Amino acid sequence: MTVSTEPSTVAAAARLLPPPDGRLGTIAIGDVRLESGAVVPDVELAVQRWGELSPELDNIVLVEHALTGDSHVVGGPDELHSLPGWWDGIVGPGAALDTDEWCVIATNVLGGCKGSTGPATPAPDGKPWGARFPETSIRDQVTAEVALCDLLGIERLAAVVGGSMGGMRVLEWMVGHPQRVEAALVLAVGARATADQIGTQTTQIAAIRSDPDWQGGNYHDTGRAPTAGLGIARRIAHLSYRTEFELDHRFENHAQGDEDPRDGGRYAVQSYLEYQAKKLVQRFDAATYVLLTEAMNRHDVGRGRGGIAAALAATPVPCIVGGVDSDRLYPLRTQQELADLLPGCKGLEVVHSRDGHDGFLTETEAVGKLLVETMELVRTARAGR
Amino acid sequence: MTVSTEPSTVAAAARLLPPPDGRLGTIAIGDVRLESGAVVPDVELAVQRWGELSPELDNIVLVEHALTGDSHVVGGPDELHSLPGWWDGIVGPGAALDTDEWCVIATNVLGGCKGSTGPATPAPDGKPWGARFPETSIRDQVTAEVALCDLLGIERLAAVVGGSMGGMRVLEWMVGHPQRVEAALVLAVGARATADQIGTQTTQIAAIRSDPDWQGGNYHDTGRAPTAGLGIARRIAHLSYRTEFELDHRFENHAQGDEDPRDGGRYAVQSYLEYQAKKLVQRFDAATYVLLTEAMNRHDVGRGRGGIAAALAATPVPCIVGGVDSDRLYPLRTQQELADLLPGCKGLEVVHSRDGHDGFLTETEAVGKLLVETMELVRTARAGR
Repeated sequence: MTVSTEPSTVAAAARLLPPPDGRLGTIAIGDVRLESGAVVPDVELAVQRWGELSPELDNIVLVEHALTGDSHVVGGPDELHSLPGWWDGIVGPGAALDTDEWCVIATNVLGGCKGSTGPATPAPDGKPWGARFPETSIRDQVTAEVALCDLLGIERLAAVVGGSMGGMRVLEWMVGHPQRVEAALVLAVGARATADQIGTQTTQIAAIRSDPDWQGGNYHDTGRAPTAGLGIARRIAHLSYRTEFELDHRFENHAQGDEDPRDGGRYAVQSYLEYQAKKLVQRFDAATYVLLTEAMNRHDVGRGRGGIAAALAATPVPCIVGGVDSDRLYPLRTQQELADLLPGCKGLEVVHSRDGHDGFLTETEAVGKLLVETMELVRTARAGR
Repeated sequence: MTVSTEPSTVAAAARLLPPPDGRLGTIAIGDVRLESGAVVPDVELAVQRWGELSPELDNIVLVEHALTGDSHVVGGPDELHSLPGWWDGIVGPGAALDTDEWCVIATNVLGGCKGSTGPATPAPDGKPWGARFPETSIRDQVTAEVALCDLLGIERLAAVVGGSMGGMRVLEWMVGHPQRVEAALVLAVGARATADQIGTQTTQIAAIRSDPDWQGGNYHDTGRAPTAGLGIARRIAHLSYRTEFELDHRFENHAQGDEDPRDGGRYAVQSYLEYQAKKLVQRFDAATYVLLTEAMNRHDVGRGRGGIAAALAATPVPCIVGGVDSDRLYPLRTQQELADLLPGCKGLEVVHSRDGHDGFLTETEAVGKLLVETMELVRTARAGR
């Protein structure tokens, strides 16, 4: 669905919502002014919804996706979206985040490639944005979501939840708009990008940009795309999402099937990484990958707010901070810092997993438990009012 | 220096040695037959030596370099080799590995690019080997060193020592030639490549091979070389050599100097990694990097020997096994396995460091201590005979 952004329609749109049952809708939110001062005109955001909105508009939970995720949190009946969702089993009717009670909304981020305005979509001149799409930040992603909420007449979110880059947006909601968030779940992320994250992320970007098919980022209408570079970036990234122990338990130094690595064949783990790369290349735009990765490099909730400690100290939102014990990309020390500095946090919740960073996606039961606790925070806060 | 490999000269060469004081020499060792059955004709190995050989030829310590190392273990007076050595302060007169007592020898591996025969050196037809250079293994690297020792009349090595890929050669000496090794130091390595190592290493190789200047590995006489791909490979690798904690302590999310990452500038850690990449690209051949990395993928002391446990159980060489507690590429569990399975090992020695895998190079004092203990094993074994 598309709504006009003419000022006169904003009030009328107060009951407009994305289509139900997880079907994909697109909502035009107008121009978005970025932190840098640049303006992205005529922005559209892809949005999905599960569950019914309460008459009081007080049961909305915003679920925030990670780098290569999208608004498709739950697998559903829509023909275009019959694929599994990235939090299947965690969100849905009767699930930990129960859509019989809560109205779950998810967007595709500003700059994304899953229905929202980004480098691969047409600029006002009708040609793909490509390299002309301005640099964005996590804060800009949230600015777009705030504009969406304004348009839909949503003043407060019962909760904002997410992990990894999704967790960065949760933090920016909490710190930048605390009065609009009743509770939050911050998973597998830290207050700012670490040197290690920036190190691997700038290397991934270099791999994409050094692909001749990158063409300075303006490849979208050339019939060529930097698939080799994006594949290498994904292979680098995927290793950082897993653990060495789990990989070795699965693959050791085994050959792939009947292939012989001594004669040009592949190792099992090599084939696995190539498969992960191929899957991503087929479904994801390289320029969006670069844009969002740069936004993650820039992630720092303390920027322009007197530093991380001050920014977090001024954020009273009741919240759960969770981390995965084996996460080698966003190590527990970074969640410990959040838990220590956020006055609304009762303490760090550790998810035990051998899956590393990916545990925030794979540990359905443990993550579900954190979501139940988060929604309990909403009830407790309301009972206390 | 070059010696002929005519059979009649082998005995005469018994007192031939590389030049003293760490000056670079080259010794022709003849044809080398590889595990695969392929033969590399007319192989030369670059060799350096520190300290005098005892009349009994019983004081020789072979120091084995890692992937991008070479025979230049100690900085020295040679004009071409006035650069620092990779184990300066650990090897030398009066050092932990004391060259007043021991005659230290180091080679550049078969396939290397620092004076030994490899992809960048001329094949018999006078053109660079390039992609024609056959696949090698760590065991092949040791085969070449064994041939060198035969040529020099060296029947037994007092010790073989090294870390990372150097540690792989130490293990192959111990397992393949136990009667020729009195004691050994195995550092920061495991019995076989892990899935995580193969995962990052095959990704690094993919980055090099996807560089258009790779030209199928036959780039040496084209005036172009896959410097972008090798640089990306090094950036991937360098992160795995360090720790996230140490990187974040040094760089956080700081910009490089006055550069502004929001406007095309770099982060400090990005600049650091680019510097590491540039340094390697200037001094190292990409095809050698690929060849040796593939040899590391193939590293498995149990191959053709009934498995790792059987191979190590049949290896009585007295040895020290050391690992770095923060090593995320060769984690301690892989050294623990070696220590548990090698009957000549008294137990795992843990080097405390925040430098990760690189600790085997940077922790001069702790590594020196392990070398002292290794040479003590030689004395103890001799006293017991």
